[in-house]
Amino acid sequence: MNITIVGSGNVGTVLYSMLKKAGHIVRQLAGRGPVQDIGNSSDLYILAIADDILPSFAGSLQLNDKLVVHTAGSVSIEILQNTSTNYGVFYPLQSIRKELNSTPEIPILIGANTEENKAILYSLAATISKDVHYANDEQRRKLHLAAVITNNFINHLLALTEDYCQKESIDFKLLLPLINETIHRLQFSPAKDVQTGPAQRNDITTIQKQREMLIQHPSLLHIYQLFTESIISLRSS
Amino acid sequence: MNITIVGSGNVGTVLYSMLKKAGHIVRQLAGRGPVQDIGNSSDLYILAIADDILPSFAGSLQLNDKLVVHTAGSVSIEILQNTSTNYGVFYPLQSIRKELNSTPEIPILIGANTEENKAILYSLAATISKDVHYANDEQRRKLHLAAVITNNFINHLLALTEDYCQKESIDFKLLLPLINETIHRLQFSPAKDVQTGPAQRNDITTIQKQREMLIQHPSLLHIYQLFTESIISLRSS
Repeated sequence: MNITIVGSGNVGTVLYSMLKKAGHIVRQLAGRGPVQDIGNSSDLYILAIADDILPSFAGSLQLNDKLVVHTAGSVSIEILQNTSTNYGVFYPLQSIRKELNSTPEIPILIGANTEENKAILYSLAATISKDVHYANDEQRRKLHLAAVITNNFINHLLALTEDYCQKESIDFKLLLPLINETIHRLQFSPAKDVQTGPAQRNDITTIQKQREMLIQHPSLLHIYQLFTESIISLRSS
Repeated sequence: MNITIVGSGNVGTVLYSMLKKAGHIVRQLAGRGPVQDIGNSSDLYILAIADDILPSFAGSLQLNDKLVVHTAGSVSIEILQNTSTNYGVFYPLQSIRKELNSTPEIPILIGANTEENKAILYSLAATISKDVHYANDEQRRKLHLAAVITNNFINHLLALTEDYCQKESIDFKLLLPLINETIHRLQFSPAKDVQTGPAQRNDITTIQKQREMLIQHPSLLHIYQLFTESIISLRSS
């Protein structure tokens, strides 16, 4: 397939390498260049640009009947309805960083305005991923929200814990087997069924001691407080 | 070594199998049995009983000079100072569930009242783990707190997300590659350096839309709110 990717961020850059490697003819343009540079000689246009500038960018672009997609989890495909008569979405459900050497497994969620466009995008996605699914705007938005919680929030918890360990002179790396085990179990058991810890067993003494230990770490203290309440509440629900 | 384990919970049961497999002579007693059943013919007594009953249990036990340890992350070894002249701790820094078939890698933190006792416990731990470390009461308590955050809180986030996916009829399993990648990166990059998402890029539009999507999920909404503020605050610090 002959593909133009607009955007030189993480998603644009990684899609560029993956599609090229899969044998497609791909060119990549910076998302901030003039709209007229985009031309109309490709079979597919992938707009891999930031969510907040995507609608105005799409509004300034006219591709007639050329297939155009964006790559955003939370943005409706309908923002492209005046850009072309054929439009959709090509959303990688993964945290992508162009500077990392290895590319992880990337599930791709496909949506489009016609069944034919869905099929074209599905076939394309299948050339770079074993894990391709259809999702309409609403399903994709929900999965994106779940992705924010499981990736961004878990990563933030880890960042705060690394900071805590560094300030308290303990070795964060000692926690890696425990963290790996926490995730590994998800393949076998619902997380709710393997919850452990002071909040789960309502161990008030330990909870109180741990709160006091966090007085110098206010962000973690707020999180500790909220999670303790939330675990106790889920446990008794 | 000739070992008595008191306690038939997760830690007691898993330590029993591991120590037996490593060639030690081990017997296991229920934590709720009469104290006189414990006897004094073993080289080592491991009290693997709940944190909240541990101090009173230790207070009712007299082992003279027999080496005795507990397995608790947050409890001082000094609660054993009247139980024996030789005492310490043998703390597995892992979330242990006796009903799971495979045993994960278990870092063990060792502490004791004398250098000789530390050395005995270190050698014993090395027969069941490749990852043995010394930690005094304060270091162990801090690691336990970090373990609560990284295991219990991550697991709770996952439990709430599973619940969200179920209620919204989307497939939680689609998120597994993303969750695995989040953890995989920890081996190469500090979490703070790979933070992504709407809060990290201060994308107010997406944050507002996602808040609205969580109105029917109040626990997640509170967490969403707090993490968004916390990520924005860490980002600008």
